[in-house]
Amino acid sequence: MSIVFNSSSERARIWSARFTQLLPDLPFRTIDDRSSRADVEFLVTWKNPPGLLESFPNLKVVFSTGAGVDQFEPEGFPDHLKLVRMIEPGLSSGMAEFVLMAVLMLRRDMIAYAEQQRRKEWKFLGIRPATATRVGVMGLGEMGQAALAALAPMGFALSGWSRNRREIAGVSCHAGIEELPHFLGGSDILVCLLPLTGETRGILNAANLSLLPQGACLVQVGRGPHLVDADLIAALDSGRLGAALVDVLEPEPPAPEHPFWSHPRILYTPHVASTIQPASSADVVIENILRFRRNEPMIGLVDLSRGY
Amino acid sequence: MSIVFNSSSERARIWSARFTQLLPDLPFRTIDDRSSRADVEFLVTWKNPPGLLESFPNLKVVFSTGAGVDQFEPEGFPDHLKLVRMIEPGLSSGMAEFVLMAVLMLRRDMIAYAEQQRRKEWKFLGIRPATATRVGVMGLGEMGQAALAALAPMGFALSGWSRNRREIAGVSCHAGIEELPHFLGGSDILVCLLPLTGETRGILNAANLSLLPQGACLVQVGRGPHLVDADLIAALDSGRLGAALVDVLEPEPPAPEHPFWSHPRILYTPHVASTIQPASSADVVIENILRFRRNEPMIGLVDLSRGY
Repeated sequence: MSIVFNSSSERARIWSARFTQLLPDLPFRTIDDRSSRADVEFLVTWKNPPGLLESFPNLKVVFSTGAGVDQFEPEGFPDHLKLVRMIEPGLSSGMAEFVLMAVLMLRRDMIAYAEQQRRKEWKFLGIRPATATRVGVMGLGEMGQAALAALAPMGFALSGWSRNRREIAGVSCHAGIEELPHFLGGSDILVCLLPLTGETRGILNAANLSLLPQGACLVQVGRGPHLVDADLIAALDSGRLGAALVDVLEPEPPAPEHPFWSHPRILYTPHVASTIQPASSADVVIENILRFRRNEPMIGLVDLSRGY
Repeated sequence: MSIVFNSSSERARIWSARFTQLLPDLPFRTIDDRSSRADVEFLVTWKNPPGLLESFPNLKVVFSTGAGVDQFEPEGFPDHLKLVRMIEPGLSSGMAEFVLMAVLMLRRDMIAYAEQQRRKEWKFLGIRPATATRVGVMGLGEMGQAALAALAPMGFALSGWSRNRREIAGVSCHAGIEELPHFLGGSDILVCLLPLTGETRGILNAANLSLLPQGACLVQVGRGPHLVDADLIAALDSGRLGAALVDVLEPEPPAPEHPFWSHPRILYTPHVASTIQPASSADVVIENILRFRRNEPMIGLVDLSRGY
């Protein structure tokens, strides 16, 4: 019985030290290890190239090193395996910090001011009261809730949208596709933190973007395929939307001719909103292996039917 | 006895309504009013052109509509007049929000990412732990303390520097010119919120900037003359400093050839960090007039000898 780790050698060193200390009876090996794969029960990986899972004949659990598991195509995931996404405090707090920064930047017109700077234009664009800034967060899991908690002290009007209804103090919560139009209509700044599933793929499309208030802004920190890139460009160019901060794209990195590189009202960042902290994410997996051994529910176990 | 208001007609409408409601016995006039100036006891103004104060022979109190009063040259201010700066909750909360945004932007390398975007470069620059980000705030008055309170939940290591020693929970406080080098040496992100006085003019100069840690960043939201513009350019170009967000300059707007317009590692914004909220700032002045009539200390009364 052993665990195989498929990530950078720098991270492997940190994980190996944690496992040796906290779970010494479980051999920790990296993906390059030439030993037999027959005794491997646990696999830790972000990427899922064809044939990877099948190369471990006695695999029991696959741990994603990120919050997303869409790369494992949960709908067609082997029934006999368990799939676990990463729920890690560092990942959530990093995302909350980035979302807070992005919302403040859009609220305070920083993309417009950067454009003015390029034109050498010195003009104040006004500041609306915090209470008149309506921030809507799509996706109310660990990261969505952490983002809302970081935004709460700023005094904005907060709302949220998720598949199943949530109750979050101080947040007006909407649920299901039938409440999506009302939610979008009240989001001056829309934050996408959804999981990528068949239902959410392409959800940021022309039809839905057109439901946002005039001049609304977008923070796209979900997964690349949530957004129909051309629809965002059209909404910005027509003047319907104000600006966007986009951190994720499909594919990454985008081709040099991708329009986001040079659009004056898009700040495009290279998938940097949050990263897992190697030590604490190792601890999360160790805790889950102990739970698995005790037949207790693992944190972040994916419901394959809903895809996250 | 009357009050004269020297600002935009839009603001005058809001102020006039507040004064009519809350201080109906005090005639409220705008600067364009042709009535005799002999009965004017109170003047509300930001700008102080030559001869303005002298045109009101029975003036008693001058209220600045902003936090700064350096335009009144406190050192030479007439002895028989009182000078009051604006201490207004909206001004402080707007500044706190802008400083939080600016610190997050610099911590998360947003100026560098914007530069990468222009070069079509897709590269993650890392994220240091929040606890390893040392933020130092110069100036610990209303705005400095509001900024520190907004930064506190982020988990950064906070320090402050002021002329006289302050005690602020969770903030390592330094005081006086002799403790300035130690304070600067521990500020990965330096925020300037000082008043402009003879002692602070030019304080952000080559000598002091050289005391910051390698790669440190600057948030300049004080007053334009705090910064020696050429020294910041030199520190950025030599690689000693990482990036700067500059909101104030002297003069404003800067000339088209000013290097801040086009420097790739300066985000230059047109003095937008915070503005007073007309209604609540009117209320602050009304409260101060009531205090003046009762012979109680006014909020924000300037100590002419220290200049703020």
